[in-house]
Amino acid sequence: MLDPAVAARLKRTADGLVCAVVQQHGTGEVLMVAWMDDAALEETLTTRQATYFSRSRQQRWRKGETSGHTQYVHEVRLDCDGDALLLVVDQAGAACHTGDRTCFDADVLLKA
Amino acid sequence: MLDPAVAARLKRTADGLVCAVVQQHGTGEVLMVAWMDDAALEETLTTRQATYFSRSRQQRWRKGETSGHTQYVHEVRLDCDGDALLLVVDQAGAACHTGDRTCFDADVLLKA
Repeated sequence: MLDPAVAARLKRTADGLVCAVVQQHGTGEVLMVAWMDDAALEETLTTRQATYFSRSRQQRWRKGETSGHTQYVHEVRLDCDGDALLLVVDQAGAACHTGDRTCFDADVLLKA
Repeated sequence: MLDPAVAARLKRTADGLVCAVVQQHGTGEVLMVAWMDDAALEETLTTRQATYFSRSRQQRWRKGETSGHTQYVHEVRLDCDGDALLLVVDQAGAACHTGDRTCFDADVLLKA
């Protein structure tokens, strides 16, 4: 079970989820954004393997369980208002299901 | 008005919002997570001043309009499934309303 002191600090959506930003250790690349329920967060904290909750499939999934593109979790932080997590990970292979390194590689709306 | 070609790629929450991850240019620090409606995104893209939609106040706000802690936007990217934005910004002063540099500084759930 998720530590009650942590659970008490989470501010969840109506669906019981908290947003998770996933960043590559060392380089700082933002790899993806996903969602966690309490059980996904607890599994992530205890195993150091990033685990999320799929809103489309309505189930928990361990990142890389089918693709092999797992995330080893170095660090987890909660933001000031309790509704966003930051995971610092080591990404094996591509983070994106398209095969791109990150989910933000393909679509640039505004260029530097 | 937001470019219809961009608007068509957005996958919004039931409230009409898309999640925005905000990252410091150069260092890669993740500063905060906020939300945007179409109008906030359009204002951000045209002015390069980060503008969000406050879910608690139910209104648009330009980051730093009261605090002075503005964000100059270098780059905006949309993720592979259209429900998360990545903004690369220059943050003036603290990103967090607590005075911390980032909203993720204070609460570490899992240490490296």
